[in-house]
Parts: sequence; structure tokens; C-alpha cells
Amino acid sequence: MQRYKATIEYKGTSFVGFQKQNNGLSVQEVLEQAIKKSTSDDVFCYCAGRTDAGVHAIGQVAHFDSNTKLNTQTLLKAINFHISNKDVALLNLEKVDINNFHARFSAQSREYIYKIINRPSHLTFYQGLAWNVYQKLDVSKMQEAAKYFIGTHNLSSFRNNGCQAKSPIKTIDELKVTKQGDEIQIYIKARSFMYNQVRITAGTLKDVGTGKLKPSDIKDIIKAEDRSKASATAPAYGLYFLKVNY
Amino acid sequence: MQRYKATIEYKGTSFVGFQKQNNGLSVQEVLEQAIKKSTSDDVFCYCAGRTDAGVHAIGQVAHFDSNTKLNTQTLLKAINFHISNKDVALLNLEKVDINNFHARFSAQSREYIYKIINRPSHLTFYQGLAWNVYQKLDVSKMQEAAKYFIGTHNLSSFRNNGCQAKSPIKTIDELKVTKQGDEIQIYIKARSFMYNQVRITAGTLKDVGTGKLKPSDIKDIIKAEDRSKASATAPAYGLYFLKVNY
Repeated sequence: MQRYKATIEYKGTSFVGFQKQNNGLSVQEVLEQAIKKSTSDDVFCYCAGRTDAGVHAIGQVAHFDSNTKLNTQTLLKAINFHISNKDVALLNLEKVDINNFHARFSAQSREYIYKIINRPSHLTFYQGLAWNVYQKLDVSKMQEAAKYFIGTHNLSSFRNNGCQAKSPIKTIDELKVTKQGDEIQIYIKARSFMYNQVRITAGTLKDVGTGKLKPSDIKDIIKAEDRSKASATAPAYGLYFLKVNY
Repeated sequence: MQRYKATIEYKGTSFVGFQKQNNGLSVQEVLEQAIKKSTSDDVFCYCAGRTDAGVHAIGQVAHFDSNTKLNTQTLLKAINFHISNKDVALLNLEKVDINNFHARFSAQSREYIYKIINRPSHLTFYQGLAWNVYQKLDVSKMQEAAKYFIGTHNLSSFRNNGCQAKSPIKTIDELKVTKQGDEIQIYIKARSFMYNQVRITAGTLKDVGTGKLKPSDIKDIIKAEDRSKASATAPAYGLYFLKVNY
């Protein structure tokens, strides 16, 4: 049995999320069916991080095991052929050691991007692909606020109901806010994240940008360990799962 | 009567082109109807450069005349309200001198971008928003080729049937090829362009990228003044009308 590591891109607005569910099409289902058509194997795709409905991926990683005799490049092309009309694309496929690689448990860190288009006009190209914030955001204030997140904290204030993480103690390695034209990107890197953590972080940074919160309020919100102190969860469709590091 | 200059963004895949036609929805029709709903005026929208079906705009400019008593910001919001579900957005609206401004005839130069996603996997986010070229392109060769276009030439080789330009003599001010990740952008600036000129240029540069043409072949293709010497017209959906300078 051979284990394969797949790097995957998908437009989240077309799916109920990564994980198989009864209420609609999932990325996992699309992938597993394409692998079945390509290899005749019934496989299970484990991913590095489940994404919610609407959340996009630029570099999600999943693994599956197969006995296929197809070489890796042929298998990659076969899977892509079967998903070419599905808003999911396989960017890379490689053989990994079945005893030493697990998409989720081997991950050392994860990177996300949250995209905001900051302008008073509605979106065309970015419809469903970014959060359209009409009110002018002060990016320098958001950058100042971002610094308070760096390091190890109890992030209970940034954790939504339904989070299954054992501990709310998380270490944020990087959090950067950049702006190019009217596009603001919030980049965040950590070993792991809690449920909706990035979206609550984005929602709170947006409130710093509008002036509703001061940058230094982040310190107090973290210290409170209380979800009600942080801002509303930002919309799913602004979030991109960028990269997994192993 | 007041003249208004409108800066417009649109997703070309949703339209038959800028100009009104009998075979489907045009950007012009959407705009004129929204202006009618906002001001009760029957207006005609003149644009800086007509775009074909599928061609996008980041900064198309149009003008129209109206006697509305709405102030400019209110009018901008009203028009956007009526097109908010239409893949067209008004980015800016300003009053201009009716005797001294014409969207098309006052334009000093125009800028376009042609987007290629150069990767063997199909597209998800960029479906309909870029040309997906599977074969690896040599960007340094494309950059070398781009230099031969700069300056004033008879560009009959880069002009499609149906072009109404009086003269095929055109001056290319800038032509730059850049790459970021798997996205290649061809940026071009000139006073004016002939029908399909940017798309034929992009198609020809792509053939330089694959090695089908040498960079120096561009010199001979231009000299030939023969459309059959240049490459196939690149797809409409990779082209973006970026900016008009007055």
C-alpha cells in the first residue's frame, strides 16, 4: 500500500466544506470519487485542516492510500481529469512514507490568509472571494493591533462554540496585515488553530481598522478569555487556507 | 446639462461586451438602465474603449450627460444600488466639463493587462478570469520578445479582420511581462489599440514562451505586415482593460 500526499486548491463557495456531509457537495467527496474513478480504489482522504463551507484553499494538503499501478504523474492527471469541472484542482501529488506521514498529525504549522476588499463599491471579480468592507480601514492601526497576537496566549476569546480543541492555549508565530490597492490581506501562521479562530481574529482586526476598537484593546480582549469580548466572526468566503508545513 | 465621468469595473464573462447588442446583456445596457432608474434620464454611455465579450475591465471609463439634481456621491450610490447584482461596479463618478471631456476622444493613453496562469492543473478561482496555459513558459524569453514591440510600427500583423482603425501605424509605449507564482501578467500601454491587438500580442508572446517562436522572430513578424505571421488570438477572458489616462 502506498500513501500519497496531495496539495489541493478549491473555491470554497462551491462546497459545504472539506469534510463529507449530508447537506451538499464536499471537497472530500469530489476527491474520493475522482480517485475511485482513476484507480478503482475506495479511499478515505484525510486533510491537514477541515475548512468550513465557503472557505477557500490555495494549498490544502490531504493524504490517501492506494495500491494503484499508475505512476504518480499519470495519477495526478487522471484525478484532475475527473474534477476539471468541479472548482477543485490537484496542484501536486507525491508518494510519502505510510509510516511517517499523516496530513493532519505530521503538520508542523499552518498558514491562512484573510482577504478584505476595502471600498465603498460592491464586488465583481471578488464576489464570494473576499470580504467587502465599505468603511475605510486604517491599516496602520490594524498592523499595530496584530502585534498583540504574536506569542503564546490563552485565546478563548477567539474560539467559537463547537471548537473541539483540548486547550485554548495557542502560539501565533506570525500575523501580518498588508495592503495593495484596495485589497487588505491578513496573513497568520501557527502550529494549529481553533474553530473560527482566524475569522474571529479578522473580524476583530476589522473593528480596529474602523476605529471601533483601539489596537491596545486586543491585549484586554485576549486577557478576558471571553468570546463575547472579541468581534463578530468575519465571513467564511474571505478566508483562504494557504499552506501546510511539514 | 452636466457631463459625468464614470470609472467602471466589470467581469466580462457575464456580458456580450461593453456595447449594446441584440444577442445578450451588455455593460452599456446595464449602466444606462441603472442611470435611468436613478435619474429618470435616458442617457447614452460613451466608453473609452469597447471591450469584446468575455473581456474584463478594472478601470474602464465612460461618460454620460444628465440634468439630475442628485449630488455626485448620491448618484454614485444610487447607480451602484441598481447594479449591485450585475457583475458591474461603479468605482468613481465625477463631474467633467461637457465641452472638454469625451471618454473616448479625450483619452491620451490606454493600459491593458493580459493574465496567464501557467500551470498544468485546471483553474478554480481564475476560471474565466485568466488563460490557463499548461505548457511551461520561459518568461525571460517573453520579456526579451516584448522589447521588439516598443516604439512606432506598422502592426498589421497584429490586427484582426473587422478592425476599423484608419491606420495600422501604432506606438507601443510600454510592454512588460512579469511573473508572480504561476501568474504571468503582460502589461501594455499605448495611445490606442487596434481590434484584438492585445490578444494577438499575448498569443504571440505565449508562443515565444513555449519556444515555438524565438524572441527575435517578433521583428520579422512585425516587418511582414501580415496577420498570418503572428500567432492565434489569445482568449478574451484573460484580458483586462486596466486604465485610461486623460
